[in-house]
Amino acid sequence: MYRSHNCGELNAGHINKEVTLSGWVQKSRDKGFIVWVDLRDRYGITQLVFDEERTSKEMLERAQKLGREFVIQVKGKVIERASKNPNMPTGEIEILVSELTILNKALVPPFTIEDETDGGEDVRMKYRYLDIRRNPVKNNLIFRSKVSMEVRNFLSTNGFIEVETPYLIKSTPEGARDFVVPSRMNEGQFYALPQSPQTFKQLLMVGGMDKYFQIVKCFRDEDLRADRQPEFTQIDCEMAFVEQEDILNIFEDLTRHLLKEVNGVEVDKFPRMLYDDAMRLYGNDKPDIRFGMEFGELNDITQHKDFKVFNDAELVVGIAVPGGNAYTRKEIDKLIDWVKRPQVGALGMIYSRCNDDGSFKSSVDKFYDQDDLAKWAERTGAKPGDLVCVLSGPTNKVRAQLSALRMELATRLGLRDPKVFAPLWVIDFPLLELDEETGHYHAMHHPFTSPKPGQLELLDTDPGAVKANAYDLVLNGNEIGGGSIRIHDKETQATMFKHLGFTPEEAKEQFGFLMDAFQYGAPPHGGLAFGLDRLVSILGGQETIRDFIAFPKNNSGRDVMIDAPAQLGQEQLDELKLQLKTK
Amino acid sequence: MYRSHNCGELNAGHINKEVTLSGWVQKSRDKGFIVWVDLRDRYGITQLVFDEERTSKEMLERAQKLGREFVIQVKGKVIERASKNPNMPTGEIEILVSELTILNKALVPPFTIEDETDGGEDVRMKYRYLDIRRNPVKNNLIFRSKVSMEVRNFLSTNGFIEVETPYLIKSTPEGARDFVVPSRMNEGQFYALPQSPQTFKQLLMVGGMDKYFQIVKCFRDEDLRADRQPEFTQIDCEMAFVEQEDILNIFEDLTRHLLKEVNGVEVDKFPRMLYDDAMRLYGNDKPDIRFGMEFGELNDITQHKDFKVFNDAELVVGIAVPGGNAYTRKEIDKLIDWVKRPQVGALGMIYSRCNDDGSFKSSVDKFYDQDDLAKWAERTGAKPGDLVCVLSGPTNKVRAQLSALRMELATRLGLRDPKVFAPLWVIDFPLLELDEETGHYHAMHHPFTSPKPGQLELLDTDPGAVKANAYDLVLNGNEIGGGSIRIHDKETQATMFKHLGFTPEEAKEQFGFLMDAFQYGAPPHGGLAFGLDRLVSILGGQETIRDFIAFPKNNSGRDVMIDAPAQLGQEQLDELKLQLKTK
Repeated sequence: MYRSHNCGELNAGHINKEVTLSGWVQKSRDKGFIVWVDLRDRYGITQLVFDEERTSKEMLERAQKLGREFVIQVKGKVIERASKNPNMPTGEIEILVSELTILNKALVPPFTIEDETDGGEDVRMKYRYLDIRRNPVKNNLIFRSKVSMEVRNFLSTNGFIEVETPYLIKSTPEGARDFVVPSRMNEGQFYALPQSPQTFKQLLMVGGMDKYFQIVKCFRDEDLRADRQPEFTQIDCEMAFVEQEDILNIFEDLTRHLLKEVNGVEVDKFPRMLYDDAMRLYGNDKPDIRFGMEFGELNDITQHKDFKVFNDAELVVGIAVPGGNAYTRKEIDKLIDWVKRPQVGALGMIYSRCNDDGSFKSSVDKFYDQDDLAKWAERTGAKPGDLVCVLSGPTNKVRAQLSALRMELATRLGLRDPKVFAPLWVIDFPLLELDEETGHYHAMHHPFTSPKPGQLELLDTDPGAVKANAYDLVLNGNEIGGGSIRIHDKETQATMFKHLGFTPEEAKEQFGFLMDAFQYGAPPHGGLAFGLDRLVSILGGQETIRDFIAFPKNNSGRDVMIDAPAQLGQEQLDELKLQLKTK
Repeated sequence: MYRSHNCGELNAGHINKEVTLSGWVQKSRDKGFIVWVDLRDRYGITQLVFDEERTSKEMLERAQKLGREFVIQVKGKVIERASKNPNMPTGEIEILVSELTILNKALVPPFTIEDETDGGEDVRMKYRYLDIRRNPVKNNLIFRSKVSMEVRNFLSTNGFIEVETPYLIKSTPEGARDFVVPSRMNEGQFYALPQSPQTFKQLLMVGGMDKYFQIVKCFRDEDLRADRQPEFTQIDCEMAFVEQEDILNIFEDLTRHLLKEVNGVEVDKFPRMLYDDAMRLYGNDKPDIRFGMEFGELNDITQHKDFKVFNDAELVVGIAVPGGNAYTRKEIDKLIDWVKRPQVGALGMIYSRCNDDGSFKSSVDKFYDQDDLAKWAERTGAKPGDLVCVLSGPTNKVRAQLSALRMELATRLGLRDPKVFAPLWVIDFPLLELDEETGHYHAMHHPFTSPKPGQLELLDTDPGAVKANAYDLVLNGNEIGGGSIRIHDKETQATMFKHLGFTPEEAKEQFGFLMDAFQYGAPPHGGLAFGLDRLVSILGGQETIRDFIAFPKNNSGRDVMIDAPAQLGQEQLDELKLQLKTK
């Protein structure tokens, strides 16, 4: 038996007990005649003590030679500490060691295994197994496990059945590129890895499973970024015989359950915001509503005043920056530079200072008098002491730009506290989205999303205006979940495919299996998928998703733990070539 | 709102309540003036009633036209049934329908959606979404979900953290062939899909996670059989600072927990059997001990009696067939034919009848007298009325043959009751296995398995004799789990690789990352993996594993739901070719 207790559980109640502990040497303090060693495991740290008198000279000497991260086992007696540490659970006691065994030595680690480490990102990724020993990473992984468990508990309790769907599937186009897997058993043929189990969960609804969920890996062969992995985890859910309202209620309850169980936070009923309102008020379909700074549209009060920039603009829109009148001219110029950066892309920014005496001072005083500027302040909710920032241009672009500015300013103002949670539903998304490059419409959510009742006819005349039974769950400015009520009859599904540019033959070839299934008694159904990686990182305090993944891939796509995507042997390559030749 | 209740919950307590139900038309009985419809959903069946008087003629006519598997919604009043059905939970009531809505029509299903269906395997696989509506399949999927949930509950309660490991990894040879995944982001390079997360879980132990588990898909690019899928699910576990005993205890508790929670069966402490004993007594490393019929080795009492077949044999071994003396000569001849089938491969079978009067009658009376045969009976535990069956030949072969015969006879004798559960641990497996074709040794479990203490030296002199800290959990003749205490130091691991025929360079290239990790303070560790598919099928009553998978692949490797492994477009193929060319 390697241990009678772990390193986090002994306290004054155990004094005089003989115990056995195992763990890693966190650090030691050597006073010559006495050595203290901090012994660490997943559960905590316990102080060991070795001295000439109470233990033995030989043991003391061996203790003095213990290096950081050595793996040791000790037997000894729990004794009261001379100088107690009230900040740690085991701070009242230490172990007077009677037996010391080195289970494994350790090289000097390439970075210190401490909460604040001296290791850079690259070296910590390379030695991820050492990084995981650090409390922040270890606690993140435990946190993720707890979130998953609470999701499962909640959904099981509410009658959802976890069903595993296959990973080796037929390719179904879902926007991103599929990873493909050559099959050796079926020469020249390939599986694809799923981008999501979307069609499978719909088939489960046709199959009468009624309430399905799965925590499942999904795959996209896309560029890697710090915050995007080619494999990601989804909490995938689907329900039959539901309307949008049923789905919003149950997954709002799930989210509230998580916030309570893992964050200890109680949240009221989630607000619901129309997509159009989110775009109008926040310039964004995933608004961060932990703070105000709502958009005020100014077209009617800024145009036809001889200011050509505004007169020519499709949209003139501003926000009030709380306390922003305190900015110096130089600071405001820097802000203007910020919005002109290529990442934001504004051509410039107009501002109006709201002085404490109720007067205004704008960068366009030539065109707008005090009454005009008072209207700007009113429209944006600016108070004396604030700064009104105004952007103008094509609606979609300027909304995105002002949204970026709003988020940036809120961050600077400390309004985005990761411990505050502000969830909301964004609903009534457009069914289709215009690809401005190609001029074609594509499904904003996916081609299985149903239009709002009665709007199917609009598809022919004004496709961009058709709203969908689609909804996103937004938390602190991030989309953490999204879903829709699905189409459940063959005719509507065929109509959708037609409007998405599929020929009947293409639709049949790619989705025939689903449309066939719809003919055998498909119930009304809908669902939602949470991005677990994102959800966990937000609940866990807004770090990057990679901080909550045991073995993330780094930016080059190389798997940090194993230093490469697999390099196949020549034999395997030849075989693959052969397969391709047989095509 | 599609429903106020589901189809399984209404009873006499709800009489006079107005309810809304949705579901599928299971069947209807039309008496002309009255129609009863069985409405089905996941939760049960509720009887609906329509008649001219109490509902309306129009509604009755519409009800008469409802086809099987139509999806409908009804509103109505719960009333007491005239003829109650005590065998169903809703059997006391029916719904007098006031409103009927057809939510979706259904084509006539290609097989009947009943517990006993008229659909053959192929058509049920093709229309798996209809097959899933049938109670046996539906209940299997719910059962699987329950097993998974109970596994998670037990392991979480016992301090295990579920950690997700990557699916896109570097190929590490583990016996079977890897599926490979070409990466478009890294031209000419490939990921592999994991055959198991073995090395990752060991890295997690090096990382101090202490207790890890994961329910995870694994992949092998192998021949498909009815009972083997290219993707399968594993309950993967690993623990640090443990000896074999710790692992056996915790996973025995897990198995006992499952048997209790999902089967309602209480099981005593699991027996532990040495691998050598399992082979000697059952000819098999996964013995079914629901019944006896243990092997009796007869070499010493059969050889040197002028019977050349036995004299020349490495092993002479028999079993007692309870009541087998009742077999006619013809039946025994059939049994002999059975063991001579190529699938079993015995050259013949000797038998000895144990008569009720205590005398014996054997097929080799010429060589063996009554005293000899009495010893056979004693050695095999045969009683009067039994039949002793004896095989002989090379040890490994004859054990496998007699094991096959033992299982076959037990099946015929009804000794393999799927409702009886007889788990056991088989321990002390050999570390290495001789490949008789190549003459090379390979790891019986995997190359990370540690030899028994003090046996490392034997590797040079008698590699086949080295025992491992490896164990299998066996249930009713099936291996449901297996694991080992791992090697946790670089030197031992390097020695193992050497004995498995790796050059130091090969070992470094393929497993260098693991051996490097072992240098930074690797704790002693070990673990176990359960095959969830097999476990579920045994707990669920010994059907094939495919019966418990929502969307299994059929024998051709084609995905039953979607009728093919993905056929790539020409563009994708060209791209892949290009990648291969760059090699």
